[in-house]
Amino acid sequence: MRISRFIDHNQNIHYGILQEDGSAEVLTGDLFEGMQPTGRIEAVAKLLAPLEPSNILGIGLNYHEHAKETGKEVSQNPILFMKPTAALNHPEDDIVLPKCSEWGPEVDFEAELAVVIGKAALDVAVESALNFVLGYTCANDVSARRWQKHGGAGQWGRGKGFDTFCPLGPALVTPYEIPDPQNLRISCTLNGELMQEGHTGDMIFSVATLISELSRDRTLSPGTVILTGTPPGVGVARKPPVFLSKGDVVTVEIENIGQLTNPVSDTDQ
Amino acid sequence: MRISRFIDHNQNIHYGILQEDGSAEVLTGDLFEGMQPTGRIEAVAKLLAPLEPSNILGIGLNYHEHAKETGKEVSQNPILFMKPTAALNHPEDDIVLPKCSEWGPEVDFEAELAVVIGKAALDVAVESALNFVLGYTCANDVSARRWQKHGGAGQWGRGKGFDTFCPLGPALVTPYEIPDPQNLRISCTLNGELMQEGHTGDMIFSVATLISELSRDRTLSPGTVILTGTPPGVGVARKPPVFLSKGDVVTVEIENIGQLTNPVSDTDQ
Repeated sequence: MRISRFIDHNQNIHYGILQEDGSAEVLTGDLFEGMQPTGRIEAVAKLLAPLEPSNILGIGLNYHEHAKETGKEVSQNPILFMKPTAALNHPEDDIVLPKCSEWGPEVDFEAELAVVIGKAALDVAVESALNFVLGYTCANDVSARRWQKHGGAGQWGRGKGFDTFCPLGPALVTPYEIPDPQNLRISCTLNGELMQEGHTGDMIFSVATLISELSRDRTLSPGTVILTGTPPGVGVARKPPVFLSKGDVVTVEIENIGQLTNPVSDTDQ
Repeated sequence: MRISRFIDHNQNIHYGILQEDGSAEVLTGDLFEGMQPTGRIEAVAKLLAPLEPSNILGIGLNYHEHAKETGKEVSQNPILFMKPTAALNHPEDDIVLPKCSEWGPEVDFEAELAVVIGKAALDVAVESALNFVLGYTCANDVSARRWQKHGGAGQWGRGKGFDTFCPLGPALVTPYEIPDPQNLRISCTLNGELMQEGHTGDMIFSVATLISELSRDRTLSPGTVILTGTPPGVGVARKPPVFLSKGDVVTVEIENIGQLTNPVSDTDQ
């Protein structure tokens, strides 16, 4: 199933399955307990990120080819950071360049496969880890590079946590549709030009390994979103570097999952 | 007002004001919109952390004397990391030593003043920042030092995020009772022996500055808890180092706020 969340023209929020004409068949039930089609069709005024995450976990340097372009060593353990839930952003909504990017352009894109945890996962074996996945979607782990590096003794908390810095969506695609999360092409285009191109088979820690490893002595609560790292081609590693500017349009695309597009603006707009 | 959250003997959760005999006068209303005493008295079966945080932000090295003991330079910006909301722990509940602390003892205590944000704060000036505070409570920023340092390329996400690693409470004390959050003695005792002793006046970034700085281009949502850093005396900086063991009892105490006590156990118990 491909589950979308949307607002109708009366400002009501629904879950539904998008139809070819852009309307949606409304789903009933609970996202975590199971949803059923109702047969009722609603017009879609706006798509939303497919859920309000309970926590947003990010993984650094998780593609061999991306680790190579940054010149960093491959870590023995997944590199974990978090984004605040207020950083959530929706399909087609603006990525807003922070006013506090005082040193000039620094905001970068990172196309990522996002994994949504469906039930509490604690001390999960690699072999059963994918049973805890509710679904997959596209994410952009937007990152202000100077704040990431210099914003506080090397911790990434500031640079990756600004408002609008976690676009997510459009649809949540259930595991039935994605039998192997390590067999997906992933890309990012900026104004139609290909910037990042990779394959989830290049991940250093697979989705199952990440869930198992991160659940060691630590409960991944339902609604936790794991951003699984980005393939090569990010702006900061390009020569010359490429950073987001007002008026840009970024699209993350993942095979069999979807396309997540966000324009870029600044707070003067 | 000193707001406690508790379970009664019928497993119902209430907010209330603790009475001298250990019972509580039940409060009605919403924690964020305002609470009123009802006159109704309930027996308290168990105290809970005063809220379920929406996000838990932590600040590193925010006391001059603690920065000194670690030998680290004072950062120009607050050092921000996050703990997952599942790390929340309650007064008197066990801090559980992680099974994955495979290198031997490494789990440390950090007494901290916790600030709870009451209304959405975005781009807030230092002068008005304390208006966004719902209240103050005690926290223990429990930290597994080897995982913190080696758990993934220097990011602190793993070592500070294990289950039970964020004891919070007991009461949420409103700003009316704490006119100056920079004028509070703070300490930590381990099995009755004084380990940490400091004063919030020693903070590098004051509570108001932290709220202002962290709200730059970034919404601090209601229910966000900010752990404001720890005074000197942490276990890892002691000679010889002191780490938590099964059977220990840790108490964080903050003047005019309260005492937060947690025993230590391991998963074999």
